[in-house]
Amino acid sequence: MSLKVGLLGVGKIARDQHIPALRANRKFELVACASRNATVDGVANYPDLVAMLAGSPQVDCISICTPPTAHFDAAMLALKSGKHVMLEKPPTSTTRQISLLADEAVRRKRTLFQTWHSRFAASVDAARDWLSGRKLVAGRIVWKEDVHHWHPGQQWIFDAGGFGVFDPGINALSVLTEVLTHDVCVQGALLEFPENQQAPIAARVDLRTADGIAIEAEFDFRQKGEQSWDIELATTTGTLGLSNGGATLAIDGRTLASDAGLAGEYPRLYEKFAALCATGKSEVDWRPFQLVADAFLIGERRIVAPHHV
Amino acid sequence: MSLKVGLLGVGKIARDQHIPALRANRKFELVACASRNATVDGVANYPDLVAMLAGSPQVDCISICTPPTAHFDAAMLALKSGKHVMLEKPPTSTTRQISLLADEAVRRKRTLFQTWHSRFAASVDAARDWLSGRKLVAGRIVWKEDVHHWHPGQQWIFDAGGFGVFDPGINALSVLTEVLTHDVCVQGALLEFPENQQAPIAARVDLRTADGIAIEAEFDFRQKGEQSWDIELATTTGTLGLSNGGATLAIDGRTLASDAGLAGEYPRLYEKFAALCATGKSEVDWRPFQLVADAFLIGERRIVAPHHV
Repeated sequence: MSLKVGLLGVGKIARDQHIPALRANRKFELVACASRNATVDGVANYPDLVAMLAGSPQVDCISICTPPTAHFDAAMLALKSGKHVMLEKPPTSTTRQISLLADEAVRRKRTLFQTWHSRFAASVDAARDWLSGRKLVAGRIVWKEDVHHWHPGQQWIFDAGGFGVFDPGINALSVLTEVLTHDVCVQGALLEFPENQQAPIAARVDLRTADGIAIEAEFDFRQKGEQSWDIELATTTGTLGLSNGGATLAIDGRTLASDAGLAGEYPRLYEKFAALCATGKSEVDWRPFQLVADAFLIGERRIVAPHHV
Repeated sequence: MSLKVGLLGVGKIARDQHIPALRANRKFELVACASRNATVDGVANYPDLVAMLAGSPQVDCISICTPPTAHFDAAMLALKSGKHVMLEKPPTSTTRQISLLADEAVRRKRTLFQTWHSRFAASVDAARDWLSGRKLVAGRIVWKEDVHHWHPGQQWIFDAGGFGVFDPGINALSVLTEVLTHDVCVQGALLEFPENQQAPIAARVDLRTADGIAIEAEFDFRQKGEQSWDIELATTTGTLGLSNGGATLAIDGRTLASDAGLAGEYPRLYEKFAALCATGKSEVDWRPFQLVADAFLIGERRIVAPHHV
């Protein structure tokens, strides 16, 4: 018996990742999609979630991959309609909303899988295993990409609530919080806002573990040429490097594993979602989101050159 | 048997509120104070918490009323030293830190009382009782005060991490979340930053209950003349007004109760702390802080005229 899925939001991430991953997994059957202006072949298409719930009541679960401002209302409605929910990152507009969704999932006894796709990158599990029992002495995140290349024309990222460079940067924080044994807090931050935009184009975040170890994170949307999605964690017994967003693992500079790309993340996400639905459990860990909110809360603001999407 | 208290931070709030409340309550004995540059008569005085813990090991609990950036390290050290902790608002620099302190208190089986003094204003309990079972239709918070009068020379409030107008504004949110039956989320916000400061001098926050009811909050540090600390909540069966920061209660414009001022808040806080210590329980509710972080996270920023403390 496969799980019947309704997909909400038919944009780039849906076509690149969700739909191929769903169609390749026999535990799922994609039966419906909802989008204001796009349709998908071979399924029932609806303009919105309300119409989908009414028109395809046999749907077991809703996978939500709209921009984040629409997540909360959709996920709440889906849970209240008795559906399991898988949520793209970042989970919601605000941190308060994700905690309310988590409460609702418990109340309704439905699965809420609040995903961080980067945690399913090929080398993240191995990195966590290698770090377990080792003693951290320093850490560094470098997450620099060309926003024009990766997010062409996406003005919403630079609007208030769009999170700016933290939209990709939160992926690094999701991996960091997954592989580290200890918790981290934001100690300070510097956020660079283009003078014509409401969300930061670059940020530096100083993190600190409970043991006082500093982890410096640099996020930048203005990177031309080589793109960087790297985490380096130095311990008393060797240094771990996770690069390509978690696909490649190196210890002391020697590459131990390297995935061709990010192709495996979404298939693994949906495998996990199937397992969670089967047991009725939820997975919600909004610590990465909380770190971003904390960076906004205490970060110094600096105004920089205008940016045009 | 009274609880022996060490007070950390001997500033305005300590002298105006904490010390008088402690000295008037026989459940407590103030035995030690720590401050970089102030001393208190009749107790052991220390330059910092480490010295106080070493010099006055008989202390049962630590009450922390330093500026918030110092709260986390102090509270963590106190809990790890086996002391009960009472924390002034706002609880910590970041939302992540208060959740870590809550975890530590559970691990150490110590009381962590993360306080919101405005919740102990005279009419807050009556307001919650009146609202219980009623149906909210609209709400409004107006929290406007003259920062020059109430926070003379306190530059830290306008530094990054000082929270600006949310330093008093969080009091309103602490009362709102206490009296409302339903949870609220930040729907949108507009933050006004003086061009020479890192924290907002005014803010408008649009809150929304789970039922979709709008509550508009206005916070302003530039208020001359009459000062406002008012919450109005309209229901289908009457309108509640809480004014003077929670001291005065009116229903449909008729004043039902009015306290002379805020004199009762801290005595009631310490009564509650004594009760928590006696049972080994904690009270931590960082929803008001989370709402502030969410306002920073998704708020639109506007640059306004410079402000000099």
